[in-house]
Amino acid sequence: MDKIPILRMGPFLLVTIQVDLYDRLALTLEADLVQMVQKTSARGVLIDISAVSIVDSFMGRIIGNIASMSKILDAETVVVGMQPAVAITLIELGLPLKGVYTALNMEKGMNLLKSMIDTSGDDEDTDLSDDDISTE
Amino acid sequence: MDKIPILRMGPFLLVTIQVDLYDRLALTLEADLVQMVQKTSARGVLIDISAVSIVDSFMGRIIGNIASMSKILDAETVVVGMQPAVAITLIELGLPLKGVYTALNMEKGMNLLKSMIDTSGDDEDTDLSDDDISTE
Repeated sequence: MDKIPILRMGPFLLVTIQVDLYDRLALTLEADLVQMVQKTSARGVLIDISAVSIVDSFMGRIIGNIASMSKILDAETVVVGMQPAVAITLIELGLPLKGVYTALNMEKGMNLLKSMIDTSGDDEDTDLSDDDISTE
Repeated sequence: MDKIPILRMGPFLLVTIQVDLYDRLALTLEADLVQMVQKTSARGVLIDISAVSIVDSFMGRIIGNIASMSKILDAETVVVGMQPAVAITLIELGLPLKGVYTALNMEKGMNLLKSMIDTSGDDEDTDLSDDDISTE
């Protein structure tokens, strides 16, 4: 199990981080994710870190990288389920996760992404709100 | 990271298995999952095993157990993302995963769960189809 699975849910991609992100795994995740964003035309990336209890500067940087990469492919990144201790550590490390949206849990994160898509005012059908989670 | 996170998505719970399910972790997952089903009144459980490349009889049994436990709490279980090699191994081990629904990927699994809820003909609002994934 040397890969972190990326799940597609309508216009979004979901990644659940459950293991320590060592170098190679993190790079693989970055590469897989940008490829999936491009392949599926995803509009958002949800990263669940509720199982992460210890964070270091490397992991903080990886999350920032993923957000930046997704952003230039027109997908927003939302980090969900952060434990309080992780938030404390990130700030103490001087990593405020700039450019990364956060939400308390998965559902709130998905609603945030949907509201961002809805208000982005592009040429797509704006009635994406609930439908596309499941049907696209 | 000694726990597998359980994500709530509307009326469903999502579990992504990325690590080897040794004894204690599997028992913790079973216990957490039934508690979550009860707490959130979930109607379905999605287990993503796309990251699992090797399966043994223990893991097959755990998945069967989870499905049976969820079933008596009125939630259906769908296993998604099974790799071909895993399907071969399960059958060769004599574990055809009875009582467990399977689907090729996450989206198909979610559609299957939704169709099951829709046709269960209970006293709930039957217009669950797309909305409740996100809003409930």
